[in-house]
Amino acid sequence: MAQQHLDPTDPPATAVMAVTGEALGAYLSARATEFLRALRLHRETGAAAGAHESADAARALRRAARRISGSLHTFRPFLDTDWSEEMRPELAWLSGTLAMEHAYEARLERLLLALHRLSGSSPFPGQSGERTGPATGTPERGNLTVGAAKAGALLERQLTLARTRAHSTALQALGSSRFHAVADKVALLASEVPLAPAAAATDPRPQAAAAEERLLAAIAALPLVTAGLPYNAEALIHGLSPDPSPHPQDGPWHQVRLLLRLHRYAREVLDGPGAPVDVPLLTAGQALNRHRDASEAAAAAAQAARTPRIAPATAYALGVLHADQRHEVEAARYTFQQSWQQEAVGAP
Amino acid sequence: MAQQHLDPTDPPATAVMAVTGEALGAYLSARATEFLRALRLHRETGAAAGAHESADAARALRRAARRISGSLHTFRPFLDTDWSEEMRPELAWLSGTLAMEHAYEARLERLLLALHRLSGSSPFPGQSGERTGPATGTPERGNLTVGAAKAGALLERQLTLARTRAHSTALQALGSSRFHAVADKVALLASEVPLAPAAAATDPRPQAAAAEERLLAAIAALPLVTAGLPYNAEALIHGLSPDPSPHPQDGPWHQVRLLLRLHRYAREVLDGPGAPVDVPLLTAGQALNRHRDASEAAAAAAQAARTPRIAPATAYALGVLHADQRHEVEAARYTFQQSWQQEAVGAP
Repeated sequence: MAQQHLDPTDPPATAVMAVTGEALGAYLSARATEFLRALRLHRETGAAAGAHESADAARALRRAARRISGSLHTFRPFLDTDWSEEMRPELAWLSGTLAMEHAYEARLERLLLALHRLSGSSPFPGQSGERTGPATGTPERGNLTVGAAKAGALLERQLTLARTRAHSTALQALGSSRFHAVADKVALLASEVPLAPAAAATDPRPQAAAAEERLLAAIAALPLVTAGLPYNAEALIHGLSPDPSPHPQDGPWHQVRLLLRLHRYAREVLDGPGAPVDVPLLTAGQALNRHRDASEAAAAAAQAARTPRIAPATAYALGVLHADQRHEVEAARYTFQQSWQQEAVGAP
Repeated sequence: MAQQHLDPTDPPATAVMAVTGEALGAYLSARATEFLRALRLHRETGAAAGAHESADAARALRRAARRISGSLHTFRPFLDTDWSEEMRPELAWLSGTLAMEHAYEARLERLLLALHRLSGSSPFPGQSGERTGPATGTPERGNLTVGAAKAGALLERQLTLARTRAHSTALQALGSSRFHAVADKVALLASEVPLAPAAAATDPRPQAAAAEERLLAAIAALPLVTAGLPYNAEALIHGLSPDPSPHPQDGPWHQVRLLLRLHRYAREVLDGPGAPVDVPLLTAGQALNRHRDASEAAAAAAQAARTPRIAPATAYALGVLHADQRHEVEAARYTFQQSWQQEAVGAP
């Protein structure tokens, strides 16, 4: 099932044919229920700020919002158009707003771990040379050179400030009437999905296949031959370019990350709950997450290096850190290329 | 022939058995003749400094000196001991002294090319994104950011000064009585090799096999499994360590580079002139040259970053450059691992 090919011209002979708009309805309703549960949990834990529970609840909220939003996009003709068109940007706003705090926290953790790795020191007692260990908190700044320690302190200051702001923005958003309007709509979705006339009996596979086609077209446009050559040194090519904006070469990869996600959600709709995980597809998606995270961490290091009046040793450490994260970008592309090749071979 | 295994217990059935100390004598005499020819050329072109011809002559001089010195080492029992023991350190001194000027020049060129690559600009008209193109001169500093341009200027100043000093030292060496004593000995070698008694009729293959064994043992001690995993991030692990000395992790690779060279020279002795080139072995050796060059370039960038009173933007660019060269180190290890695997598979 996991490897099933979404070809609408397949002969109508198997269980797969049973899939109709009903499956989409069930999927949306289940995600809406998850959304409401996460929201309740977030409200209960939010103010008391048991940081972990609250973060878990926010993650679950985002996860559900992304799936609802993605499915509304992929299966547009199956739903009431006005309702759907109104809903999607609101869900995108919500998950985007909720994602920022976590993103800044994860970025700081990634950069501090990298600084420790680059200093040959361990951020946590009993561990050494950890690349991306399961961090249980922000690593401390022991055993670093002056430059690395100062760079770490600078990044901590800047990213903690950004995180605090994102936290306030998220709290404001969750208290806003705009949010309550979204929550009301999701509550409605949990009990009754506004399917378009005849949608319940229509086959949703052509829409899923179209989502897959969009993904394949975007992947075909990626420089995968280069990405598959280890140490191709592409990711750092503009590492010292005068252009301060994020690397334009990353854009197509970020786009594929979003399309891969839509493809994955569409398959969730068709495969139903309990379908086996497609490991290469999951790995490919994780590689693109890592690509995005490393790309943004590299940009944060470059940004920090533009802080006025920093010491040369701090700037040097930030330069090493930037390059290190750009190589993570390159490594993530390599991993994506490898797992996508597997995915392509695995498909019938 | 190129893939022939140096096992002295092979049955005495083939043309290979014809190899005796005579072959070593012929090899040494031929290298000595090359040495003298290069020396004459160097003297003719030296003062007038047609830079290219002079550099070519110095390269040929070093090439011959390395082969004589290496063969004296590998085939020690075949030669008059006192003569050989006196000769080797003198040849090492000579090729070491002559190598410095070229090394500084190549290091500067490597670093400036990298700065251009990192800036997304082309150092030579009509080329772009060149990684290690056949440079015909020192690239100019156009289209660089302020940081990259200042870093380039700083490196140019420091490495040009070092190169100029190395040039004077080399000229002094070539005019010294110490050098004339070496040259006289090489002249003697060209006409008559001082073989030990009975050496002319002895099989030199056990010595060559021992040289290969030393190489294999050193390679077995390398972390090749890690090196074969692309993007293992090992080379940069101490990129920000407080230890300012060259990376200790590079040492074993430098050692293998020297042992591989001795193995190659020993095979030249046995295979005789005109033997086909063993491509994987050559590629493996070139990877180790690149490893050494990138390691030293990375150290030069780190060293330059310790110059007092540099601007933060300069230090940042040097940090990016350092990390870039450390990734070249890692890439060279990967290439070595790959070509050595081929070499091992290719051997009978």
